[in-house]
Amino acid sequence: MSVAKNLLYEGKAKIIYTTDEPEILLAHYKDDATAFNAQKRGKIVGKGEINCKISQALFQYLEARGIRTHFIDCPAPNQMRVMRVKILPLEVVVRNIAAGSLCQQTGLPLGTLLKQPLVEFYYKNDQLGDPLLTRDRLLLMELATPDELDQLQQQALQINRYLSEFFQSCGITLVDFKLEFGLDTQGTIRLADEISPDTCRLWNSADTDPNNRVMDKDRFRRDLGNVENAYQQVLERIQLRGQESEVRGQGN
Amino acid sequence: MSVAKNLLYEGKAKIIYTTDEPEILLAHYKDDATAFNAQKRGKIVGKGEINCKISQALFQYLEARGIRTHFIDCPAPNQMRVMRVKILPLEVVVRNIAAGSLCQQTGLPLGTLLKQPLVEFYYKNDQLGDPLLTRDRLLLMELATPDELDQLQQQALQINRYLSEFFQSCGITLVDFKLEFGLDTQGTIRLADEISPDTCRLWNSADTDPNNRVMDKDRFRRDLGNVENAYQQVLERIQLRGQESEVRGQGN
Repeated sequence: MSVAKNLLYEGKAKIIYTTDEPEILLAHYKDDATAFNAQKRGKIVGKGEINCKISQALFQYLEARGIRTHFIDCPAPNQMRVMRVKILPLEVVVRNIAAGSLCQQTGLPLGTLLKQPLVEFYYKNDQLGDPLLTRDRLLLMELATPDELDQLQQQALQINRYLSEFFQSCGITLVDFKLEFGLDTQGTIRLADEISPDTCRLWNSADTDPNNRVMDKDRFRRDLGNVENAYQQVLERIQLRGQESEVRGQGN
Repeated sequence: MSVAKNLLYEGKAKIIYTTDEPEILLAHYKDDATAFNAQKRGKIVGKGEINCKISQALFQYLEARGIRTHFIDCPAPNQMRVMRVKILPLEVVVRNIAAGSLCQQTGLPLGTLLKQPLVEFYYKNDQLGDPLLTRDRLLLMELATPDELDQLQQQALQINRYLSEFFQSCGITLVDFKLEFGLDTQGTIRLADEISPDTCRLWNSADTDPNNRVMDKDRFRRDLGNVENAYQQVLERIQLRGQESEVRGQGN
């Protein structure tokens, strides 16, 4: 069992430690919440454990379907052992429904169903405010090779299909989400970071009220209240789905 | 001769009038200068005439090389008769050297020579702050058809080749520029708006000083002084080039 050795990196939502195994890192999920490029800061009590558990469930679900991720296991409720990967400085965003910056920058009304999923790349750079990248800018900046870019696009769309189906079976609509990828020691692209209400927009499918339906970090961003409860709800629905799948003997 | 009839539209740098001919409009070039989405306002004395004359010279130069433009003629020094076109709500920016928002959003140092020209599309929408568009966003918003988009890209690159050569022969480096296009009554794409130190970044090729070399609206944006003089210099170099071409009997 690897134990935390040295602090490698402290991010906004996680602390990453090295372990006694050079190719394995330990991620501590934090309760800290930030929004608007860390201009807004707060705490969501219990978030660390909840997001770690949700991410675990989703990484395992995706791995079972052939998506390579950095996930290994969870030695504690808010801790995840992951493979050490070289993170690509890109935020890969997949959108099914217009929300957030897409609405602000295009004028599309919130909730517009997109004819096909939109994959977008943002430069992971807090100083520059994580700007949207065109394909040409991304290649000009050499943030990925054309081949990597095509692979990221395909994987992002495949992950979107799996996650949309998964959340749908939990009564949750997957509006959009942000992924991060890394290269492992073999140069293989692996899904990294986390998948949680911090990184996804999730709407309660049964609720059409634009505020009530929100089950993700937008509750924190937009001061909608009941933040902890929403995160807890997402976890419970995922756990309930897992139990039902087990009963039906389908695994995952 | 068409005369101004009704004010059709007042923009930041021009007023557009209808004329007694329904397919012809009259553009009055103004001395007003704005920057940063009109947060900064001022006047550049003589700019209306200078930009009208520069635009005329460049439209005629491009027309002679097969680029379709909206230009007809100039009935007065600050007035241009143009064909009525349906303006596409896009700013098409071509960049040869990194400057302005490209540097701010990518971290590329000012003055970085790009390996190949970069064509970018921005949504012409002041309220939204003229945001950068990816190809997918542009098509999602139906701001142009895929075919129109390919045509715009090709025309922009062709215009860049012609203008870069033109300015080079004036001792001026064409850093980047913004184009607007419209559709005429036949549905043909025509270059519209203006081409001037308001819409191009132009550097004196013989000068390496990052402030001295600037011959465009960046002098106004960045309070570098000598704004009128720089605009006048651009016009004089263009006129001198025209005279030399005439002497050599090459036309244009």
